Parts: sequence; structure tokens; C-alpha cells
Amino acid sequence: MESQKQLTIGLFGFGVVGEGLYRVLQQTPSLKAKIKKVCIKDASKKRNAPDELFTTDKDVLLNDPEINVIVEVINESEPAFEIVSRALRSGKEVVSASKKMLAEHYPELLQLQKETGLSLLYEASACASIPVIRNLEEYYDNDLLHSIRAIVNGSTNFILTKMFEEKLDFKEALLLAQQLGFAEADPKLDVEGYDAVNKWTLLVNHAYGIVTHPDNLLFTGIQSIQGSDAVVAREKNFEIKLVAQAKKLVDGKVAAFVLPQFVKLTDPLSFVKNEYNGVVIESGFADKQFFYGKGAGSFPTASAVLSDIAALRYDYHYEYKKLYYHKPHELSSDFYLKIYVSFDDLSFIPKDKFEWIEEWHSDADRKYLVGVIAFKELQQNNWWRENNTSLILAPEPIIEDVEIRKIKKKSLELAGL
Amino acid sequence: MESQKQLTIGLFGFGVVGEGLYRVLQQTPSLKAKIKKVCIKDASKKRNAPDELFTTDKDVLLNDPEINVIVEVINESEPAFEIVSRALRSGKEVVSASKKMLAEHYPELLQLQKETGLSLLYEASACASIPVIRNLEEYYDNDLLHSIRAIVNGSTNFILTKMFEEKLDFKEALLLAQQLGFAEADPKLDVEGYDAVNKWTLLVNHAYGIVTHPDNLLFTGIQSIQGSDAVVAREKNFEIKLVAQAKKLVDGKVAAFVLPQFVKLTDPLSFVKNEYNGVVIESGFADKQFFYGKGAGSFPTASAVLSDIAALRYDYHYEYKKLYYHKPHELSSDFYLKIYVSFDDLSFIPKDKFEWIEEWHSDADRKYLVGVIAFKELQQNNWWRENNTSLILAPEPIIEDVEIRKIKKKSLELAGL
Repeated sequence: MESQKQLTIGLFGFGVVGEGLYRVLQQTPSLKAKIKKVCIKDASKKRNAPDELFTTDKDVLLNDPEINVIVEVINESEPAFEIVSRALRSGKEVVSASKKMLAEHYPELLQLQKETGLSLLYEASACASIPVIRNLEEYYDNDLLHSIRAIVNGSTNFILTKMFEEKLDFKEALLLAQQLGFAEADPKLDVEGYDAVNKWTLLVNHAYGIVTHPDNLLFTGIQSIQGSDAVVAREKNFEIKLVAQAKKLVDGKVAAFVLPQFVKLTDPLSFVKNEYNGVVIESGFADKQFFYGKGAGSFPTASAVLSDIAALRYDYHYEYKKLYYHKPHELSSDFYLKIYVSFDDLSFIPKDKFEWIEEWHSDADRKYLVGVIAFKELQQNNWWRENNTSLILAPEPIIEDVEIRKIKKKSLELAGL
Repeated sequence: MESQKQLTIGLFGFGVVGEGLYRVLQQTPSLKAKIKKVCIKDASKKRNAPDELFTTDKDVLLNDPEINVIVEVINESEPAFEIVSRALRSGKEVVSASKKMLAEHYPELLQLQKETGLSLLYEASACASIPVIRNLEEYYDNDLLHSIRAIVNGSTNFILTKMFEEKLDFKEALLLAQQLGFAEADPKLDVEGYDAVNKWTLLVNHAYGIVTHPDNLLFTGIQSIQGSDAVVAREKNFEIKLVAQAKKLVDGKVAAFVLPQFVKLTDPLSFVKNEYNGVVIESGFADKQFFYGKGAGSFPTASAVLSDIAALRYDYHYEYKKLYYHKPHELSSDFYLKIYVSFDDLSFIPKDKFEWIEEWHSDADRKYLVGVIAFKELQQNNWWRENNTSLILAPEPIIEDVEIRKIKKKSLELAGL
């Protein structure tokens, strides 16, 4: 059988993930992968590894002909992009965990993979320990993938779990997440959905061959969710999750966004607690499939990086089948969403912009309504992000354009018009 | 990018799976796979497809040079083996769903794949819609896979769910499963664990590179589980599942078996209800990962077959890395199990064969005990299969040889010996 490649690794970053990776590779010689050099920013920091392993000069790694794999687990996006693109250009395969960098530079990085024929693997950048990219690449054929829904951010899921199960308020839950290392010092990236939409940018490509920029995907986080919303959820026997989703519509285009959602207890996503991630894939005739695993933390991330390294020994590379071998899908804005909106002051809510309103609760001091609204309306206007308004999707939120037209026609008939 | 192969399929079997497959392929032309001929047993049966599609002569398919893929979804094991092996020998790639045939002829079929260099894919044969084989092949490296635990038989899980949730007795639950098409007319294969151990034979190879015969894996089904066992489970806040499991021991060998088990509600397998299947993989540093999907029924099976067909367009084949690229693991018998045993008559229970007994309930008319016993004892003797005895594993059942020795030493010290 074909022999395995010997991997000589240049590692960028020696934080929790980088150091974890270093330890694991030492413990598993059969992986035939050894770290030759590690590039770090701060030479003064004390490290639990021989000094000669480290350098602050990235060229030492990038210009070393013996190093055939660059593993990049640093935090800053722009330096990461320079490292990854220079590595590919100098004939080295790359494993990266920088979702923000990958999402923002996707077209260039796809082009670079084409030009060089080299492998850029980034399983660790989405759902950490869940092999979701590999499964979308290898298993779910273009024509068979109806929809994908996922909890891709462990920090926000941890916070929501604590708000629900221990009735902590948002600030307490956030503090706890930070203490346990599930949230960054600056929680904005997680809490406001930036991290989730970066991951989703990568996954909509592997799911549907759609290459887009995070800015083109409608998203928000959990920053505006209030205790009163959790109360409503409990009354209805729902949980609230930050759900990234993409669904193929009847016209063949794809609806994709990241928004908070009411989730039924029968929905596998309701099983996803604390810092875990989960992915529900609906594919032709297979019904629902559910993938579940740790999405945050150093070890799950290190393990995904490790699996990518292991795959490189067999010259594995993403083929981007849905992008290159099929007619890629397009994003759609022509659909409707059933949403719950809670607010303090009705005057900020554009009632007339709704197709219809099903529920109306204006008695309590925290008021809310449930109604159907055009996706475009949410794209084009920000009222739902402002004035202490909170928006949460209904359990089956997506309503197709055709259905709306049918319903309108019917109601006109009933009105005898 | 590389072009896709045009697949011309010869299909064996036109039951629910075969016909489902035929419909799907008609609906998805972009799959570039067309069924040229279908071989059936009973020509007289009325089919919802043009007559010229069918033949009862397998040579028509196997000798047709235009047919480059044989898809085999028939029920009988030996004819299936002849079809699959002849197809490979005549240069055709094969997709099969016959777990029994595959498990019983594994060595020959591995040899045939080696000799011909052709692809034999069988994702549908284990956990139907869950891509577990593909994930074990591609994602979980040899050194990183600590353990795999799975519910691989939808029928027994459906029966256990109904016994638990609707308090049906075994016979009622079985009848319901048969009415819904989740159990065969002859339920023995499902109920007594034969189907599960066949699937497990395939999965221990893809997980650990162990090629063995179903007869070498200790297994039983749910036939001896009684209402009183379910009562005990509920008291302890457990569920009862038929769990196939394999775990790497400290000596590097692998413990593997299929037995009923008490499952905690925090165990992802407890989330698996009715005809669903679930797989929990513990891999280095990734902690637990959970895969969940429909494991029985025609469509989930057809969808898995379809994914294999789709993969063939890109010349995908199993590499059996753990078998060929690494030192394959061996099965172990040198470990202990913590078991619950319920019985009517104590005289049939070899108390002295237990390392120790932790619980002892001889008051009720259905008596039970919880104790630790050598795996070899269960392999070599059948008392636990006879005289209306029922055996169920404790939640963390596997105890390593070294631990037992430590404990024995300690107890001798305590006894001042």
C-alpha cells in the first residue's frame, strides 16, 4: 500500500492549542509528524519546551526547505493570512484554525490552493472536534443536502445554557464562561455572533459551494436576549439557541443566516448544552442526522488540528466538489421568517412591515409579538437591532415565497375579493 | 479539476431499498448514475418500472461490459457474496448493504479489493444513514481512537424504547416494530443480536484494523430482558440499550463485544430513541463525539447507498489504513466486566466465579445481583444465557486487569495478609 509522508512541521503559536499539539505529537510517534520549529511573538515568556525550539522570526520556518507543513494557531487574522499564503506559495501544506482569517480571505485562499495544488486544511476552524467540514466534503452530495443547522459557538451556547438551567443573568453567565476559558477577554466576537458567522461562511461553501464574505450573511448574537425571553421560551417549552442555518429553497437557491432561535425539546440541537457544538444535517431520504462534540477549549481544537495533520500524511485535500464539479448554489433573499420580537416601546416596531402577526402580547411591561416578515426587511433595516429590541426565530422559521403567495391569495378569496 | 466518472449501474434487488434507490437516481440526474438493468428473483411480481429494466439472469448484469458498478441490496447472504465477488473479479466496483455477508466473508473481500484495486463500499451496512465507516476511515487516526460505543440495531432500540416509554411488554413492542417495518418477519436476527454483531465486525475493522469473524465477538441481544429489569433501571435512573462497544486497553489490545447495558441519562446514547442509531466516539483530546441518525428503514439505507454511489464518481475507496498502514490491534480477553444479573433461581448463578459482588437482592421474586466478573468467564460459559437469566452491563462496565490486581492486593493488605 502507499507509504505515509514524513511530516516536518513549522508551528506558529504556542498558546494552549499550540502547546497541547506539541505534547500530543511527542506522545504519538507513529503519527510520523515532528515539530521542528515554533514561531512565537513574545520571546521573553517562559515555555515548557527546549529554548532552541523557538524563534520570533517567521522566515526561519517559511524559508526552511525541510519543513513541509505549516500549522498556524495564532489569534491575529492578518498575520495569519500572511503566514498561510506565504506558506502555500513556498510549497508547504497548511493546517489553520483561524476561522476569521479564512472566512475573510476565502476567495484568495481557494485560488491559492488551485494554483499550488497544495492542501489547506482547517477542520479546527468550525465546530472544533466535530468533523463537519470533512463530512460535508466527502459524504453529503450536492443534490442530497436539504438543510444544515448548527450550534457553532461554544461560548454563547454555554452562556445560554447557564441562563436557562441556573437562571443566571447574562452578565453572570458571561463571567463564568470567561473564568472557565470558554469566552475571550473581549467577548464581543463570540457574544455578538461574529465568530459564528465566520464559521458559517466556511460551512456554506462546503455544504453548498457558496463562496461569500461574512458581511453577506445576516447574523446577530445573543447580546439582546433578556430574562423575559427565556421565561417566554420556558412557557412554550422551548430553549433558546444561537443557530446558524442554511436551507435549499424550492427555487434551488439557499437561505443562510445566523440568528437566535426557539428550539423545541425534540430538536437534537436542544441536546447541545454548555460549550458543546452540534450540527443537524437533513439530507435526501436520510432524514435528520446529528453530529455532536466539544466546540470550544484547547484540546478539542488541538485534536481537530491533529486529525488534519494525520490526513496530510495521506495527501488529503479538500476537493470543493460542490464549488468546482457542480453548478454552485446562490444565496437567496426571497423568503420569509417567522420571528418573535420582544420590546419595551411599540413605537419602534414597524408593524406594517410584517406579512401578518400571529401573537400579540402588549400587557406585560416587556411586550412581544410573533409574526412573519420578509428576510429582506431584516437585511435592509436595523430596527430589530436597536432600542432594546430582541429578535428570536420561531422553531420552523423559514417560509418560502410561494407559500406566502398562496396564503395571500387564499385570504383574499376568503375576504371575497 | 478532475472529471467525474459516468456510472452505469447493475442493481441486484428491487425491494424497498432497491426501488427507493431507482426513484432517487431518476430524480437526481446530476449524480450521473443510471441504472441499466435490475436483477430480481421473482419475475412474476408487478413492478413500478418498465419491464425491459428487469432480468432474472445475473449474468446479464455481471457480463455487461458497459455496467461499471454493481449495487447489491438483496437479503440472502450467500448469493450476495457470489454477486459481489464475481463483480469485483470482472472489474466492476461494488456498493453493498449486506452486513451479514460482508462480516462473514471479510477476509476474502479484503483480499479481493487488494488484488483488483477496485472499490467495495458498504456504508449502508452499518448505522444506515450515519456515515460512521467513512468517519472511522478518514478522520479518527489509529492512535487517537480510545473507544467507540454504538447503538447499531434500530429494531431492538425501538423495542426497548417502547418497553420503557409506553411500558409495553416485549411481545407487544416487537409486534409494533414489525408492523412499522423496523423488524424482520423472523425477528431472531435483530432481537438476539446477530445483526448488531455483524455490523460490529465491520466497525471494529474500520476503528482498529481488527479483522475477525462475528463468532469471535461476544454478543447477545435483548431477548432475555424482563419488565423487572426495566423497573430496576428506572429506580437507578438508567435506560437499557443494546450497546456495541470497543475500547483500547492499557496493554494496547482492544476489548469488543455487544451486550445490553444500563445507560445513564447523561450518556448521549440515552438520547437515541426508537429506530434511531447512535455512535459515541472517544478520541484523544477531543473528548466524546456523538453521531446520530436513522439506522433502520428503506430510505436511510437507500441514502447511504446513494452516498457510496456518489463517492464512486470520485474513485473513492476505503484504504483500511489501520489494517495496512499501522500495526493492527488485537482483540483482548484479559479484562473484567461489571454486570447486573437478574434470575429466578440462585442455584444457576456461579457466585464463586465473580471477583466480587457489590449488590445482592434476593428478597424479591425476581432476584438480582451486581458484581465484577472476568470477560473470559462469559466467553467460556453459558449460564448467563440460560435458565431465564438476564445479564445487563453496568454504565462503565470495563475494568482493566491491572486495576483488579491492585484492588485484590489492597484487600489482602487490609485483611492483614
